[in-house]
Amino acid sequence: MLIERFVSEGLAHNSYIVADGGEAAVIDPRRDVDVYLDLARENGLRIRYVLETHRNEDYVIGSSALAKLTGATVLHSSRLAFDYGTPVHEGDRFGVGSLELRVLETPGHTDESLSFVLGETKARGDAFMVFTGDTLFVGEVGRIDLYGESERPRLAAALYESLFGKLLPLGDGVILAPAHGGGSVCGGHISARQHSTLGYERRHNPRLVEPGREAFVRALLAQELVRPPYFRRMEELNEHGDPAVFARAPSLVPLRTGEFEERLRAGAIAIDARMPQAFAGGHVPGSYNVGLEGLPVYLPWVISHDTPLVLVLPEQASVEQVARMLLRIGFDRVEGYLRGGFTSWQEEGREIAHVGTLSTAELRRWVESQADVAIVDVRQPGEWEKGLVPGARPIFVGELERRIDELPGDRPVVTMCSSGNRGGIAASILARHGFHHVFNYLGGFGAWKASGLQTVKLERAQAQPTAEAPFEDRDADWPPA
Amino acid sequence: MLIERFVSEGLAHNSYIVADGGEAAVIDPRRDVDVYLDLARENGLRIRYVLETHRNEDYVIGSSALAKLTGATVLHSSRLAFDYGTPVHEGDRFGVGSLELRVLETPGHTDESLSFVLGETKARGDAFMVFTGDTLFVGEVGRIDLYGESERPRLAAALYESLFGKLLPLGDGVILAPAHGGGSVCGGHISARQHSTLGYERRHNPRLVEPGREAFVRALLAQELVRPPYFRRMEELNEHGDPAVFARAPSLVPLRTGEFEERLRAGAIAIDARMPQAFAGGHVPGSYNVGLEGLPVYLPWVISHDTPLVLVLPEQASVEQVARMLLRIGFDRVEGYLRGGFTSWQEEGREIAHVGTLSTAELRRWVESQADVAIVDVRQPGEWEKGLVPGARPIFVGELERRIDELPGDRPVVTMCSSGNRGGIAASILARHGFHHVFNYLGGFGAWKASGLQTVKLERAQAQPTAEAPFEDRDADWPPA
Repeated sequence: MLIERFVSEGLAHNSYIVADGGEAAVIDPRRDVDVYLDLARENGLRIRYVLETHRNEDYVIGSSALAKLTGATVLHSSRLAFDYGTPVHEGDRFGVGSLELRVLETPGHTDESLSFVLGETKARGDAFMVFTGDTLFVGEVGRIDLYGESERPRLAAALYESLFGKLLPLGDGVILAPAHGGGSVCGGHISARQHSTLGYERRHNPRLVEPGREAFVRALLAQELVRPPYFRRMEELNEHGDPAVFARAPSLVPLRTGEFEERLRAGAIAIDARMPQAFAGGHVPGSYNVGLEGLPVYLPWVISHDTPLVLVLPEQASVEQVARMLLRIGFDRVEGYLRGGFTSWQEEGREIAHVGTLSTAELRRWVESQADVAIVDVRQPGEWEKGLVPGARPIFVGELERRIDELPGDRPVVTMCSSGNRGGIAASILARHGFHHVFNYLGGFGAWKASGLQTVKLERAQAQPTAEAPFEDRDADWPPA
Repeated sequence: MLIERFVSEGLAHNSYIVADGGEAAVIDPRRDVDVYLDLARENGLRIRYVLETHRNEDYVIGSSALAKLTGATVLHSSRLAFDYGTPVHEGDRFGVGSLELRVLETPGHTDESLSFVLGETKARGDAFMVFTGDTLFVGEVGRIDLYGESERPRLAAALYESLFGKLLPLGDGVILAPAHGGGSVCGGHISARQHSTLGYERRHNPRLVEPGREAFVRALLAQELVRPPYFRRMEELNEHGDPAVFARAPSLVPLRTGEFEERLRAGAIAIDARMPQAFAGGHVPGSYNVGLEGLPVYLPWVISHDTPLVLVLPEQASVEQVARMLLRIGFDRVEGYLRGGFTSWQEEGREIAHVGTLSTAELRRWVESQADVAIVDVRQPGEWEKGLVPGARPIFVGELERRIDELPGDRPVVTMCSSGNRGGIAASILARHGFHHVFNYLGGFGAWKASGLQTVKLERAQAQPTAEAPFEDRDADWPPA
């Protein structure tokens, strides 16, 4: 018997394999499915089932690929008209050796959300583990905003029923196996702890401890989460089935500086995945700076999945790991990466762009002297509530490019976030749009607060875009023309 | 936050690392400690504590080595006078980042057995995981026979208190993290399932479901387990501290056939780790046949830890893996392995020994015709109760060599177990002692039963050795003079 979790870093996505007696089921596979194939090969397993907890929105699911490569049956909810696979219903059971997976319909995050209850067949339905998808996480529950504002109350109520009427009644002693860990965009504050049980969550999950449906729904409706624009594309691929089959990520092409420049001229976008300090010190003009760790979460905010792109990578980066990261979120038009890194670019005497950086002491002087600078705080709703640097304007990094006209082109602009990484993305966006005096505040709000400096409260009106369309609906026409 | 389990194959030993905020604690480390050092290095962790659940009896613990290499503090029970480390007591707490490990004294398997309760410091003592050592396994509880027959009732009662008075009251929703999985010699019938909770065990562990202390103790006293002779040596090393430090297993020396033979002449013992069919087909005269998978469990039964040994390995074996297996159980006098495997031996035209094999149909003919053969069933107490092939004599494989006089030297002898592997060990023992007509029944009792053939019940008297000393006390003078 073998039960393994696979973590896709960056996305903080958990997939699982459950195996016994030479048979296996994979739950919510990632797009580069070699990890399941390898494990099956090494352990002499036949993958019989691929189980999907729901139409995942934050990554391309590997179900179709795995089914094509192994002959496995894809099982997902009957409540959405998937173009592939087999619909299952509440109470359906699937055997894997001496184990049994039972379907539990747990709507709320989405209407078609399922949980899979794992038990020994001989224990007749008594479970020891449950795969909850995006319904229940460690320390958090699924987000209920994917269908838009008007559907939130209905989904929150459904989620309450799923949690309190179906999942928690499975019993305290059931190990929780959710589809995401801390850092995922699929929940508000998922814990960094990957180990929990229904009993521990019942007592310690902030969403579950307050009694009553009303309090639960109210708290959930107060939750403000940003919705990455690529979700729609992922949902589409996962509903209709990914036509591509990747046993592993295709190799990224190493590009000589000349080739790299040619690609840029032909319309490719340069993504610089180094740290913001390095980007500030020197970068290929026009490139976006999205550091490696934030790539899966923030790249989809700055460019669309069908944009051809070329990469500048940190010296020690694993090119294979980067290729996998991009593959998982459906960025299939990667034309290559700069061979030899940024060093090779500078060695040839090519044009180099810079942005400025600021220390806490430097920003403090500007703030206290009321210098003629604009400060843009690119954190997201929920973070600004912790306070703002006096005078800072809150614009989420994912909205910055389309709201760039709200910033003054004739004054220095300071970008900041909680630490400096999203500030780097913001600085690169501004530089790309011709802002000449851009400074990324290294340390961000975290350093400001740790230094005991004055903060101000967010005024709700501040967080509203000056553009007319509400944020919720604007990803329909993404990417901007 | 990072919590990982490491499985030592063969021994089915689980060790764990718990890390948060750059600090780590290792629980019951194995002797080749590189796996913890590597993980710590990759994740920027400082190993602060090494926690021992008890004086382990089935492997050499890596605590002293890990402490020497990292400066970590070794913590173990105050109820045994360990020669190293720091004694801890009920209720002591140790912080690892935002996590906390709390000491629970849970005697029963041994007097000094501890469990470590893992929780978030902010949850004030509420646990989400517990490291139970050999006190509670998935589907089984610890054995209570290590102090000898007379102490069993006392230990069984203590174990009951530890389980029902201390562990289960932690709550159903606590993940169980025991020191062994299925296949270990440290429990009777540990489950192959590695995932469970206190709640699931409370409802499904056969030792815990029957109500009442009396039933618990009675069932435990009825348990018959063999006690490997090397336990005493492991206990000694683990009490006084292993003087050796192995960051990893030392490389095994590849020996040319001539060198291999020289070592044999100088007193080394040859261990043939191939499958019994290959051993039967041809082997180095005088070698013991202990297949690779059973090496950690059965090698200590056939030779003592201080015997110099040389190995014949299967063609595809990982030499490194074999080295680690032997290191973990304290077999430090491995002089090397036959380079090129048995093929190189036969290519030089050296002397080759054989043993016979039997199919089910062949053995059936002998049994039904009451042929003049002896059948020795080398399974262990608890297995014979499932039935015997008519006429078979039960002698546990670990006792065979000292009870060899009970077998007739002048007739064919059939060895058998449940499948054929321990039968191979037995055949090699007999061949080594000059038995000329030895046949290993391939398939063993499993095949006999699957073929629907007649079986007979074990008569209790049958299982008694004809030698005078009770088995329990006989490992004191191991190895036999």
